[in-house]
Amino acid sequence: MNEKQVKDITSRDVDFAKWYTDVVKKADLVDYSSVKGSMIIRPYGYAIWENIVSILDKMFKDTGHENLQMPMFIPESLLNVEKEHVKGFAPEVAWVTQGGSSPLEERMCIRPTSEVLFCEHYKKIIKSHRDLPKLYNQWCTIVRWEKVTRPFLRSREILWQEGHTMHASEAEAREETLNMLHIYEKLQKDYLALPVLIGKKTDKEKFAGAVETYTLEAMMYDGVALQNGTSHYLGQGFSKAFGIEYLDKEQKLVNPYQTSWGVSTRMIGGIIMTHGDDRGLVLPPKIAPIQVCIIPIGKFEENDSLDTLIKNIRQELTKENITSIIDNSDKSPGFKFAEAEVRGYPIRIEVGARDLNENKITVVRRDTLEKITLPANVDEITRKITYLLKDIQDNLYKTAESRRNSMLYTASDWDELTMTAQKPGFTMISWCGDEECEDKIKNDLGLKSRCIPFDLQEELNNCPCCNKSGKFNTYFGKQY
Amino acid sequence: MNEKQVKDITSRDVDFAKWYTDVVKKADLVDYSSVKGSMIIRPYGYAIWENIVSILDKMFKDTGHENLQMPMFIPESLLNVEKEHVKGFAPEVAWVTQGGSSPLEERMCIRPTSEVLFCEHYKKIIKSHRDLPKLYNQWCTIVRWEKVTRPFLRSREILWQEGHTMHASEAEAREETLNMLHIYEKLQKDYLALPVLIGKKTDKEKFAGAVETYTLEAMMYDGVALQNGTSHYLGQGFSKAFGIEYLDKEQKLVNPYQTSWGVSTRMIGGIIMTHGDDRGLVLPPKIAPIQVCIIPIGKFEENDSLDTLIKNIRQELTKENITSIIDNSDKSPGFKFAEAEVRGYPIRIEVGARDLNENKITVVRRDTLEKITLPANVDEITRKITYLLKDIQDNLYKTAESRRNSMLYTASDWDELTMTAQKPGFTMISWCGDEECEDKIKNDLGLKSRCIPFDLQEELNNCPCCNKSGKFNTYFGKQY
Repeated sequence: MNEKQVKDITSRDVDFAKWYTDVVKKADLVDYSSVKGSMIIRPYGYAIWENIVSILDKMFKDTGHENLQMPMFIPESLLNVEKEHVKGFAPEVAWVTQGGSSPLEERMCIRPTSEVLFCEHYKKIIKSHRDLPKLYNQWCTIVRWEKVTRPFLRSREILWQEGHTMHASEAEAREETLNMLHIYEKLQKDYLALPVLIGKKTDKEKFAGAVETYTLEAMMYDGVALQNGTSHYLGQGFSKAFGIEYLDKEQKLVNPYQTSWGVSTRMIGGIIMTHGDDRGLVLPPKIAPIQVCIIPIGKFEENDSLDTLIKNIRQELTKENITSIIDNSDKSPGFKFAEAEVRGYPIRIEVGARDLNENKITVVRRDTLEKITLPANVDEITRKITYLLKDIQDNLYKTAESRRNSMLYTASDWDELTMTAQKPGFTMISWCGDEECEDKIKNDLGLKSRCIPFDLQEELNNCPCCNKSGKFNTYFGKQY
Repeated sequence: MNEKQVKDITSRDVDFAKWYTDVVKKADLVDYSSVKGSMIIRPYGYAIWENIVSILDKMFKDTGHENLQMPMFIPESLLNVEKEHVKGFAPEVAWVTQGGSSPLEERMCIRPTSEVLFCEHYKKIIKSHRDLPKLYNQWCTIVRWEKVTRPFLRSREILWQEGHTMHASEAEAREETLNMLHIYEKLQKDYLALPVLIGKKTDKEKFAGAVETYTLEAMMYDGVALQNGTSHYLGQGFSKAFGIEYLDKEQKLVNPYQTSWGVSTRMIGGIIMTHGDDRGLVLPPKIAPIQVCIIPIGKFEENDSLDTLIKNIRQELTKENITSIIDNSDKSPGFKFAEAEVRGYPIRIEVGARDLNENKITVVRRDTLEKITLPANVDEITRKITYLLKDIQDNLYKTAESRRNSMLYTASDWDELTMTAQKPGFTMISWCGDEECEDKIKNDLGLKSRCIPFDLQEELNNCPCCNKSGKFNTYFGKQY
């Protein structure tokens, strides 16, 4: 790739879909293979995922959850146990029918999600109230046989985590469902700089087999929604279907209450489509694999003063737990700048022998592209970079939030809804709660219900669809 | 489970296979499901794997390797590209033939290993000598359709890591192959306390498609070998078959040199079968998820002096990065002791109100079961435990090593070999290098070649099989 090729990214305002595929390729996040519908997550993309995993895994463990590993296969008869669940998933699974040279007696799908595997295990290990709660999570790959795929957003193979918990009481299980939603919210707001709307899914949009599904809805640059994680309260549906029973404190046999919750590499798609720009990727510092890229300009010898300065800067940054690289390759400075931009390093430092004579270096922040001149003093540079990383993180969130807010509309009648439906973004209406109206809005206007937010439920108007009293203020929007 | 059930483990000298399955179940490492040949790795077992992963992942990254994620599927035509490779793996793969409700145009196997996927990717991204070396690794699950399975040792689904690297020169690739073997050796000796023999596999036993395979051979308590990791020098076989070519510094198109290497959850089986005893699991402190279990004896109230002491001990241990739990459950002390033993916690602390009156506590080390009385002084307890953890780690290695050494034999003629073949352990012979003799030893005596160790090659005798001059001093033994 030369400098021009690095920079040659479709403008996001011209063709957002093309811009997206340009960025994921040019930033070295993914590659394609002969495995249709699957992607290769390249080292730079995978390092983002590793950072997310490590943050989230700590949050899970700090709240008492334990990791384990279930089989990746589900025998057809096991998938069939919970009727709503199988209806939702059977049409989109991959089937293994042969092992070695022999056909299998019973075909098995590759897990599209693992509720049934967890339930089978829970039936064996939950016998007494002393065995509760069970707070389990697994990091794994799932398979859903999608027809149309896009890197990170919709893929046949998905890297994710799935939490599966069992509780003695409904109240405790409901609390867990919401706690996990809030952990996801914290991850997305505080680390990924994604301003998400949280709330409840309508019955039509909830998880196959759930009593309630809660969701995090992010809005992309183009105003389209990305469902960026869900947390389900499953009630006793699965535990009854699977016959999971335990002796409670009164020595009565009862069914436990269940939750499940998951987020996936899809969040990386959300980061790209929220923060990226026409020069490529922009990464929030807290999950950027490389936070600072130091680019020496012009030739320099080992142990000359430029070399010493650069090494000292890197050493100080490392001490402060700031990850950095020195780009010592034989590419031109222009190429290196372009590459640092396309890969979304939050900060780059440019410094040459001439700068050093003037005792200065240049720091460029990726979010605003602002250039800042600093004295060539290691302590001062480190201090400033520490500050800038925090400022970039905050600025990315604020920028995304104000853009998102500028694309939130309300509509109180059909005409208004028809108008806002044509604009990028979400429209809030006072929905009557009937699936008929939800369907009509989807079929006529192309908007799906996103969520019923927890707040903003005080003032209700009439449903713009049927004109009956509204029951839930509900966001509608187009989705990925 | 009651106390008796916890303790009810088959003696390892009576029935080692039964002892093994008792331990993996009773120590809560694995469970079974309706997915035949796959296992559930339960939280306690998975936590051991997480510790191993974190140690090894750091070693990989410190030596310049990057993680990525490949698809889990391999289209049949891609598996077929390298002829030796497909011959080795095609008979034992699981085939996906249907996606959703449609049969696939081309069936795909679930990766049994990923050389072909990496090669296809390398062909796209390696164009110039500047693109080399590529030092990639992935953590993932592979599938091999085994007929007879045993938890951790032989399973249809295997959690592992697979390294795949590409180099400009044969020397560099050969060096990488050995470096990775030595990283595995370090992991197994210094962390898992497994005394492994390292060396080269014979041509017959090498990886399908490799020029050379290097191996780590551990010996279990019963004298049977466990191949506990391999590192392969692949030469240019795959890179030629896949047409991977790059422009070298002289602008000539050439094929790169390749390596691959992997270890898996099988190592956990090795830990169990090396260190475990008739009371259950014994874990090396460096990979034990819980290093110290504190067991209060008798009732105690919140904030009484026993409670305070226990909390203070735990706090001090945590400060020293020693993981601990307090077993405050309503089980009997006897039950708790048995459970601490079966789960292999390196150290347990027993302390009751009566001990406290006498200003003492009891520390029990799991490896020797020795009971040590200590004054009830938090600093002294912490100091002693820090020392004991180190001592247990060392002692486990030394015990395993001297047992292993006591089961290493040499045989210089067929009679001797026939005799040692009946004893548990490995026999070293000066093998002539002919596959005929290797086959005869396997067919007549049930011993497979384990490895040609790097050292001990100076003095060679005649081959006990054909009486021709020996070429390689080679270990033979039974294997898992």
